[in-house]
Amino acid sequence: MIKITFPDGTVKEFEAGVSGIEIAKSISSRLAKEVLSISVNDQLYDLTRSINEDASIKLHTWNDEEGKHAFWHSSAHLMAEALEVLYPGVKFGIGPAIEMGFYYDVDLGNGTVLTDKDLPKIEQKMLELARSKNEYKRSDVTKEEALAFFNERKEEYKVELINELEDGTISFYQQGGFTDLCRGPHLPNTSYIKAIKLNSVAGAYWRGDEKRPQLTRVYGITFPKKKYLDEYEVMMEEAKKRDHRKLGKEMELFTFSQNVGQGMPIWLPKGAQLRESLENFLKRVQKKFGYEQIITPHIGNINLYKTSGHYDKYGEDSFQAIQTPQEGEEYLLKPMNCPHHCEAYKFKPRSYKDLPVRFAEFGTVYRYEQSGELHGLTRVRSFTQDDAHLFCTPDQLKEEFKKVIDIIFIIFKALNFDEYVAQVSLRDKENHSKYIGAEENWDKAEQAIIEAAEEKGLATVVEYGEAAFYGPKLDFMIKDAIGRKWQLGTIQVDYNLPERFELEYVGSDNQKHRPIMIHRAPFGSMERFVAVLLEHTGGKFPLWLTPEQAVIMPISEKYNDYAKKVLNSLNNSDIRAVLDDRNEKIGRKIRDNELKKTPYLIIVGEKEATENTVSVRKQGEGDMGSMTITEFSEFINKEVEAQLSSIENY
Amino acid sequence: MIKITFPDGTVKEFEAGVSGIEIAKSISSRLAKEVLSISVNDQLYDLTRSINEDASIKLHTWNDEEGKHAFWHSSAHLMAEALEVLYPGVKFGIGPAIEMGFYYDVDLGNGTVLTDKDLPKIEQKMLELARSKNEYKRSDVTKEEALAFFNERKEEYKVELINELEDGTISFYQQGGFTDLCRGPHLPNTSYIKAIKLNSVAGAYWRGDEKRPQLTRVYGITFPKKKYLDEYEVMMEEAKKRDHRKLGKEMELFTFSQNVGQGMPIWLPKGAQLRESLENFLKRVQKKFGYEQIITPHIGNINLYKTSGHYDKYGEDSFQAIQTPQEGEEYLLKPMNCPHHCEAYKFKPRSYKDLPVRFAEFGTVYRYEQSGELHGLTRVRSFTQDDAHLFCTPDQLKEEFKKVIDIIFIIFKALNFDEYVAQVSLRDKENHSKYIGAEENWDKAEQAIIEAAEEKGLATVVEYGEAAFYGPKLDFMIKDAIGRKWQLGTIQVDYNLPERFELEYVGSDNQKHRPIMIHRAPFGSMERFVAVLLEHTGGKFPLWLTPEQAVIMPISEKYNDYAKKVLNSLNNSDIRAVLDDRNEKIGRKIRDNELKKTPYLIIVGEKEATENTVSVRKQGEGDMGSMTITEFSEFINKEVEAQLSSIENY
Repeated sequence: MIKITFPDGTVKEFEAGVSGIEIAKSISSRLAKEVLSISVNDQLYDLTRSINEDASIKLHTWNDEEGKHAFWHSSAHLMAEALEVLYPGVKFGIGPAIEMGFYYDVDLGNGTVLTDKDLPKIEQKMLELARSKNEYKRSDVTKEEALAFFNERKEEYKVELINELEDGTISFYQQGGFTDLCRGPHLPNTSYIKAIKLNSVAGAYWRGDEKRPQLTRVYGITFPKKKYLDEYEVMMEEAKKRDHRKLGKEMELFTFSQNVGQGMPIWLPKGAQLRESLENFLKRVQKKFGYEQIITPHIGNINLYKTSGHYDKYGEDSFQAIQTPQEGEEYLLKPMNCPHHCEAYKFKPRSYKDLPVRFAEFGTVYRYEQSGELHGLTRVRSFTQDDAHLFCTPDQLKEEFKKVIDIIFIIFKALNFDEYVAQVSLRDKENHSKYIGAEENWDKAEQAIIEAAEEKGLATVVEYGEAAFYGPKLDFMIKDAIGRKWQLGTIQVDYNLPERFELEYVGSDNQKHRPIMIHRAPFGSMERFVAVLLEHTGGKFPLWLTPEQAVIMPISEKYNDYAKKVLNSLNNSDIRAVLDDRNEKIGRKIRDNELKKTPYLIIVGEKEATENTVSVRKQGEGDMGSMTITEFSEFINKEVEAQLSSIENY
Repeated sequence: MIKITFPDGTVKEFEAGVSGIEIAKSISSRLAKEVLSISVNDQLYDLTRSINEDASIKLHTWNDEEGKHAFWHSSAHLMAEALEVLYPGVKFGIGPAIEMGFYYDVDLGNGTVLTDKDLPKIEQKMLELARSKNEYKRSDVTKEEALAFFNERKEEYKVELINELEDGTISFYQQGGFTDLCRGPHLPNTSYIKAIKLNSVAGAYWRGDEKRPQLTRVYGITFPKKKYLDEYEVMMEEAKKRDHRKLGKEMELFTFSQNVGQGMPIWLPKGAQLRESLENFLKRVQKKFGYEQIITPHIGNINLYKTSGHYDKYGEDSFQAIQTPQEGEEYLLKPMNCPHHCEAYKFKPRSYKDLPVRFAEFGTVYRYEQSGELHGLTRVRSFTQDDAHLFCTPDQLKEEFKKVIDIIFIIFKALNFDEYVAQVSLRDKENHSKYIGAEENWDKAEQAIIEAAEEKGLATVVEYGEAAFYGPKLDFMIKDAIGRKWQLGTIQVDYNLPERFELEYVGSDNQKHRPIMIHRAPFGSMERFVAVLLEHTGGKFPLWLTPEQAVIMPISEKYNDYAKKVLNSLNNSDIRAVLDDRNEKIGRKIRDNELKKTPYLIIVGEKEATENTVSVRKQGEGDMGSMTITEFSEFINKEVEAQLSSIENY
């Protein structure tokens, strides 16, 4: 008999050789149906594999990343089998599970080209093979056996991969007529796979090297229930509508110009307005939390980054150094704002009474990305971080951490991100040499983060060994309105830069001490955040944030002058209004602007011009009747102020 | 007899050979005493030089640049004479008049070093020589004679200068025992020089070339009346107190870090606050004038600047191109924002109905300056322009120009710049090939500027031939509180960039047309403007602008908590308040903060803490009694709003 320990700490005895699926059955038949893979002492196993010793286990279902991973990885093998049936002689590269589904890189040979039109045929073959309920069978082979197997089949890519493996046992997986080199784990059999969608084909160089052959990458996703595929397709449709690149263009928020440079957004008037509203909101919140804005240059002497260590990280692989025409100086576009803020801290001697010092800056940084990696506002070469660096004593760390969490909560509340989790990344205590900073400081800092998160009621997962070498951190992950996850804000403790920049403060003991630094960016960057916000809201922003709060529509050209007067008057009262003076019927104007989701529609005609009033319709609520321009301005400004203060007092 | 035409157009007859001083005498004996030089048909003459033909003349006194220039140039010769007496064998480089005074570069030989201690002795000798009333005598010599003269005296620097002159007549000036190669004009005699101040000595390489010998540069200034020297010394004292570098440090507005880079300011919290207030003020004004903010990257592809022509101007002599680690792209730090704004204009097709398009950006640009040229915030390597580019039709040009003048007036009013002039720079009509753009457009644009300035009642001087090759412009020059002149805002018409970027709009005729572009920056740059503002105000800013509007002073440590409560409450009401919780007597705190010119001093003690009130003192006006925190907040906010709207409605 062996002892199996469950995640909740309970222990049960089983016969040696018990498998994951048997353990699941011993709990409930429902669980046995839903379980997809198992972790045994933190190692992933097939459900059918024997467990022969005492172990801690965790069963994974569709709700766990590990469960999905096994499911999609098995699906990649299934697709490979289908391809082998349909395209005899096909050779295989790699076929991993990814965040949403899986892909396989294949070489069809003889100039055969796959297109999207071929995908339904492959899907059908996969479904057919899935229904055959073929088992995924694991076997162990030697390196020689593995090489012999694939050499015989002229699978040159697999041979190359095996040659790079260390000597020893290699695992094969086989289902139906298909055998693959694979670490696993896999599903018990193919019948788990009930619904299949192959999404696209693309070219992919073997091993990402443009000098090697170009393979065909086939992307797909599969589900254990047909219903999940339907939900996925609805979500994908919705995601397409919310694509921030599409909305950004339609709403005229930002653009890219190849002449200026790829991956470097130009914020158009409405986008700049949106960004300014977000920045002003955060500035206002941060001011309440004792932050001070500073402004630093976008370049720095190369030696600054040698001091900070950023040159080692970004120097070779990012934008290259800028030479001066005389005097032989070298500058770098700044990849991060922290070195500049350290220099600002050093502007004058600091006492413990001055701490915490909290420097904030909307600092634009530049990092080179290959053009192929660029994607809308989420992967760019220039981005503006909502950066701040807090310099504090060890005793202040927890309190400061809690305050940063508060700011992040305020932002999530303001923008209706209701679902989020946080990951606490701590050090690997077994591996002291990996980290800089005194043991007791690390203990204190990790304790501070854990307690801060707990006291703030934050749902967290703790990951050991995930801390940066210079300190532990807390990362926030939000779920958007259609269920996609995005990584946003981060809070990072840093012992390294204060050391490298020799930052100091005089303590109450009259001795010099080193402050601790906290890096934090609740939005992450303005670019990424606006992208996420667009995808989350579909472009419908709260009144305080939206670049167009009201649209003024004269019922005919005769009232354009009065409409302009209303426009000026609203603009002068800090209301963001626009004019729709197109030569269109008022009904058409109302429909168009309702589609654009402008919160308030203002109609002006004979009656309004005579009485100096406006007729107001509220988006989604309809007619609000007539009011004076001043009444309307005050109404809007009060609503904005109420939104902002209710958020801030959250 | 010859006809002499005066600046007011009157014509008088004089005998041929009449001199400037004689003409002045014919008008009044007072003028004869005050006149220093004369322009004859736009050419500068000595007062004693004969006029032999009909001519237009202008007499220059101490109130004219030309008068001062002759005075200081003559003073440089006087100083040279004194040096020759005191340091026999001294050799001379060049000795020009400058904006405030003059200098002479001299080689004392034999390792002789001048220090500030030597200056009084030289001043004394100069005064002694001045009293001798030696005439400045002009004589014409050939190049050979000039070379012979200076070769004999081993004046190698003068010989080098003469060798570079074209063949022909060269003028010498001689007074007392000193003779110099010089174009003139000079004063009639040395007795005009009544007061002398030698300011400093410095090293200066011959011809600015560090490979040539280092000479000693002696700076001085002289006056026709002792009283003027006294005033000058008071002004210099005052200027020293107002030096923006000194104030910037004392007030903790900005700092420079050699580690970040020379000439690249780091804006500290109070400076960033000041800058933000200025920016928000201008944004608010610009919004009323229909401007839209955009945000563009700080670098651009090198080809963008080849298209714009900026690469020719800045490419070689400024920060060098930035290479990418792959893909072989080249980027430049942007020296100007205009190319980016042209690209933003091109984001979509434009119709005449969309014009004017007015794009504004507080855009940080980078230009290399030699480290020796850097000076506080007035000469920097990174600066943020309050830039905007207006794209309009030819018919809209005048109206747009007038609106820009309005904005500049609003700014001058807001910051108490009461004295200013504007220079209208037009083209040289004789020289068509120098300019780009159609004749009729130039006519229209120049007409528009002149009329706009006139209709706005702006005092202007018109300079022909001073327009840029791409369009005419208007520059503003202000006089600060202690009489110094500073160049500030500029408005510039541009036909060139719309051409180079092929900008278009569809006119009412349904044809494509090229818009006209106006560049304008009322502040010039945030850096330069803040420097001028500091020197103008001595750091005492109006309430709406000052980074510290109120200081809260608890009368003892017992009330620190209440003081903090007041601080938070004021900050939450958008009032910029700080806490003075030093362990000092309240009298001392009041005195210190009155010196710092904080507009409102808030005193809190037992009574205030109990009653939830504050006691308020207004800078310069004294006790305002007690009020609730809310009353005080509203009072301040109303005062700020009143200041801003009175300015904007100006």
